Amino acid sequence: MDTAAIKSYFLDLQARIIAAAEAADGGSFRHDEWQRPAGGGGISRLLEGGALFERAGVGFSHVMGDKLPPSASAHRPELAGRAWEAMGVSLVFHPRNPYVPTVHMNVRMFRAHQDGEADVFWFGGGMDLTPYYGFAEDARHFHQTCADALAPFGDDKYPRFKQWCDAYFFLKHRNEPRGIGGVFFDDFSELGFEQSFAMTRAVGDAFLGAYLPILARRRDMSFGQNERDWQAYRRGRYVEFNLVWDRGTLFGLQSGGRTESILMSMPPQANWRYDYQPQAGSPEAALLSDFLAARDWVSA
Amino acid sequence: MDTAAIKSYFLDLQARIIAAAEAADGGSFRHDEWQRPAGGGGISRLLEGGALFERAGVGFSHVMGDKLPPSASAHRPELAGRAWEAMGVSLVFHPRNPYVPTVHMNVRMFRAHQDGEADVFWFGGGMDLTPYYGFAEDARHFHQTCADALAPFGDDKYPRFKQWCDAYFFLKHRNEPRGIGGVFFDDFSELGFEQSFAMTRAVGDAFLGAYLPILARRRDMSFGQNERDWQAYRRGRYVEFNLVWDRGTLFGLQSGGRTESILMSMPPQANWRYDYQPQAGSPEAALLSDFLAARDWVSA
Repeated sequence: MDTAAIKSYFLDLQARIIAAAEAADGGSFRHDEWQRPAGGGGISRLLEGGALFERAGVGFSHVMGDKLPPSASAHRPELAGRAWEAMGVSLVFHPRNPYVPTVHMNVRMFRAHQDGEADVFWFGGGMDLTPYYGFAEDARHFHQTCADALAPFGDDKYPRFKQWCDAYFFLKHRNEPRGIGGVFFDDFSELGFEQSFAMTRAVGDAFLGAYLPILARRRDMSFGQNERDWQAYRRGRYVEFNLVWDRGTLFGLQSGGRTESILMSMPPQANWRYDYQPQAGSPEAALLSDFLAARDWVSA
Repeated sequence: MDTAAIKSYFLDLQARIIAAAEAADGGSFRHDEWQRPAGGGGISRLLEGGALFERAGVGFSHVMGDKLPPSASAHRPELAGRAWEAMGVSLVFHPRNPYVPTVHMNVRMFRAHQDGEADVFWFGGGMDLTPYYGFAEDARHFHQTCADALAPFGDDKYPRFKQWCDAYFFLKHRNEPRGIGGVFFDDFSELGFEQSFAMTRAVGDAFLGAYLPILARRRDMSFGQNERDWQAYRRGRYVEFNLVWDRGTLFGLQSGGRTESILMSMPPQANWRYDYQPQAGSPEAALLSDFLAARDWVSA
């Protein structure tokens, strides 16, 4: 499959998600195209200060180079020096209402080329949900949607990718998961190019169905300063994960990526308070005890 | 010199700074003692929501172990496996008034011991200022105080440590310094134990004289939401530096340090806005153009 067809899928996915997000919010995403001096570029779409989304970013990027640096191929040393390209869509939505969870989704493709040899490729991606208030109904729906999307590609995929997600989006310095998880996969090529790409598309295509019903259920719940304070405090954890543990963010920032596009994932506001513990029995405490622990959300 | 005398200096420094900060604020710092399971512990002192300080932390820690891990001695491989101890005081003050700069100070000692060999030790530390609005008078005073404190230890010290500070507190992903600098040194033993410790004390002892006059000059300046918004936005840079680039923070979080003590450096609140640029000719733009660039603040 040529690059143009893959690019066309990713650009269409970005456009469909933006259209749905704009319809939900009523506002318009700005459109920022950028070039990468060393090759390639991207399209960053962002909405700030919307009625629904306090900060929402959906980025497309397609970057490439003549020689893969050794640091980028640590687990595949045989690829160092090959021509390479990486392409994908990544989004984070930070809604204003603390009852609406923050969501992250990413789908991406990597390909390395050397004349006379077969291309090496892999896919990665997933989606995960970070609520400030826990609703079992929402967690079950989100996970079930992921499971349904992956079912055609093998019974093992959802359980493996669910566990991978729990392991990846984990703040080791807090001994705490970032949210209620979802699915995550990386370095994936085991189904061959066509089916691995089809599986990646299935994840991307499932995003709106996973998130929009949750958004619709929670967006009109009333909230006050107490809920906003808790949301701002918990958003600090989002910042900590992304800047301390997320490999893509760290690699991007430390290797000269486009900072404003990488940091579209940051919340609009984050607060820190020393050793803060929510009151026992509160909905805030319930988030920690009942939701921020690896759990099965899909019945076997 | 025995450990007790060094510890006594660090604890006294912490107490003097707390006393001065409480006198300036009118509030009280909480007192939190903690033990490190693998050896040692610390005293974290913190004030949140004060009249003057929105969040201010002063930590003392004294940690030790039987065998220095190789990861902690990468630049001194001969020390791996030795018994070691590290001790120091570290502070960050985040004032509420955007005209009062954020300040950071740290003094620390490291010692490695092996029977039958001379102890290996070094000192590190420094202080640096992060204003939200630039005042040349404040920058000159802060740097001059650092230069005066270091003068007895050799003419080269201030220029070297000033440059080291500019290089260290730099956000490479923004191509931007964290603030207007100050002094920074690490791995320092070239004057011998006694004089190296004396120099480190001179830096610690100079802190209040460097910061309090600035605080007194700026604390009653009136400000509004516009200045608070700019402060919150710039505090995002503080978060980015500390979580992405600061070696002590990263090493601490990734190696099982006490998270709440390490993250006392975080601001109470930080905001992110996409590709934000202050208006040309504004005081906010002047901070970027006239202060956030390596400059000489002390006349030769």
